[in-house]
Amino acid sequence: MTRSGRPALAVVGATGAVGTVLLQLLSQRADVWGEIRLIASPRSAGRKLSVRGEETEVVALTEEAFDGIDVALFDVPDEVAARWAPVAVARGAVVVDNSGAFRMDPQVPLVVPEVNPHTARIRPRGIVANPNCTTLSMIVAVGALHAEFGLRELVVSSYQAVSGAGHAGVRTLREQLSLVAGTELGTGPGDVRRAVGDNTGPFAEPVALNVVPWAGSLREDGWSSEEMKIRDESRKILGLPRLPVAVTCVRVPVITAHSLTVHARFEHEVTVDGAREILATAPGVVLYDNPAAGEFPTPADVVGTDPTWVGRVRRALDDPTALELFVCGDNLRKGAALNTAQIAELVAVPDRLRPSAP
Amino acid sequence: MTRSGRPALAVVGATGAVGTVLLQLLSQRADVWGEIRLIASPRSAGRKLSVRGEETEVVALTEEAFDGIDVALFDVPDEVAARWAPVAVARGAVVVDNSGAFRMDPQVPLVVPEVNPHTARIRPRGIVANPNCTTLSMIVAVGALHAEFGLRELVVSSYQAVSGAGHAGVRTLREQLSLVAGTELGTGPGDVRRAVGDNTGPFAEPVALNVVPWAGSLREDGWSSEEMKIRDESRKILGLPRLPVAVTCVRVPVITAHSLTVHARFEHEVTVDGAREILATAPGVVLYDNPAAGEFPTPADVVGTDPTWVGRVRRALDDPTALELFVCGDNLRKGAALNTAQIAELVAVPDRLRPSAP
Repeated sequence: MTRSGRPALAVVGATGAVGTVLLQLLSQRADVWGEIRLIASPRSAGRKLSVRGEETEVVALTEEAFDGIDVALFDVPDEVAARWAPVAVARGAVVVDNSGAFRMDPQVPLVVPEVNPHTARIRPRGIVANPNCTTLSMIVAVGALHAEFGLRELVVSSYQAVSGAGHAGVRTLREQLSLVAGTELGTGPGDVRRAVGDNTGPFAEPVALNVVPWAGSLREDGWSSEEMKIRDESRKILGLPRLPVAVTCVRVPVITAHSLTVHARFEHEVTVDGAREILATAPGVVLYDNPAAGEFPTPADVVGTDPTWVGRVRRALDDPTALELFVCGDNLRKGAALNTAQIAELVAVPDRLRPSAP
Repeated sequence: MTRSGRPALAVVGATGAVGTVLLQLLSQRADVWGEIRLIASPRSAGRKLSVRGEETEVVALTEEAFDGIDVALFDVPDEVAARWAPVAVARGAVVVDNSGAFRMDPQVPLVVPEVNPHTARIRPRGIVANPNCTTLSMIVAVGALHAEFGLRELVVSSYQAVSGAGHAGVRTLREQLSLVAGTELGTGPGDVRRAVGDNTGPFAEPVALNVVPWAGSLREDGWSSEEMKIRDESRKILGLPRLPVAVTCVRVPVITAHSLTVHARFEHEVTVDGAREILATAPGVVLYDNPAAGEFPTPADVVGTDPTWVGRVRRALDDPTALELFVCGDNLRKGAALNTAQIAELVAVPDRLRPSAP
């Protein structure tokens, strides 16, 4: 605790795509923190970033950087988190980690404050994990429906924004768009690929005028790591370790905000009216669903907002126990920075769970 | 029949997006036709278009335009087809119609030559219907798997190209891309919408830097007409009138080639090797599936080609009877013009079924 009596927060990876949004959020949310210390790689040390209206100097990631810190938020690659999170814990901090390093560790809770806040209390390793951005972009809505109807199966397809691959993903799409705008490309086999050349950045294929059915690295039997994360993390967050989950992940030329189609089958018959009532009142969810008036969420409309937006709510025509949804959420906010900040507040001030205002 | 002894073909709607591709295909395919007559609205009459290397004058749509025609291909809006297809039949032509006007008429076969060619023989109204472009972009692959494994359920999400909405769809995306390229748009709520203004063309929302979960018109209980088409047409083509089919249709900023994720459940246990063997040998299908080598289909790579491309073949991790696929096909070729041309050849020369060479 600082002298003011408020807990001290560290942000590790403050200069990355998620770190940048996190600093904005910390400046906007009800302030529970004493010191906020910014930590990054030695390369970024000395840079000054604005947080809560104050220019704050970035310090290099060292053991001593965690002295006096109560909660440390990590937004760094898996291998950096795996090495440094235990260091921060040893120095006395609770770590909230947004990498994949600890999510499936049975000794580490995987927390979405609107869905399973109680699990954040028991953290034998001193670490709480933040889910993957794609899981987070749908799980608040799915969790609310599960609490009422009892989930039996998920079939999910993603429409993932390029900022899920960080600053490099955004830069790559912007550069590719400049190459294809004003042209007649996209009408002959491979013409976009030839125009883009080697400039595919973090993606396997050109993403401008294209969709790319791949995200992450190759796992067993043809699955991508991103698809496995959505399955495994959804099961852990919902407390349904044997839930059947089928996922296909696809990258789309959107800057920020992931979208997903969700086919969710429940224990018993469901009604659209019942589902809409749940979604309309669930914390952190906005129901935006009136196609007669042209109302359904799209990523370009929800980017920069906190909630999970849900539209296109329908009951499956051939299965009264299944619902179809289209879900959008900002992958840098609820999908990463916001959920991390919410967990940090939950850890620091456990009696004040703060779901994001819709 | 013309004096040459070959059947005479009419193309109605020769100047549209699908008509344009159809004329290219008729110039490339093995030639079974005598005269090819081009028909369009009076507004386009007198224009000259190239087909089989000859400049051919477009004639206006009138009753007399069908005199001497054996097979008439219609690529026009539903209401034009509903009015004029019976006129062409009355004048002695067999109509192959690519609109939605007759697809679900029980007296009209709905034909995909690789899947149900035999149904084209019985046509009490003199009309054969061509499926919707989104159905066609996946049904050849799904049909091949069904023939071997017996389909029990489909859950499908689409990634639909703008040319599915015709020339106006393509023009709209190109104009929007010119407005967003070189900007920092796509990071704040509604900034793309404000930049695009009223220029949304045939779409409900901006489609550049966005995905739009809507295609077609509103049907009962929140379903879109496009989603209902995929369900109803898949059932009719596969001869499975009670097949459970759940669909969500989403427009993406791709010029041409529709993509779909497919979760297909079968009667019995399936294997990935078995599925791959079927897809590798199915007429009109190309299996392109080696993620370790970065090989999976994308719309920018398959646009302008004839086959249905299939990748990301996986068995559901939690259901040994289900497969996951990612499927891409050119919505103007196999999705429209090519299938229409194939049906016309099947009707004109019934013993010479010509699946497209992969």
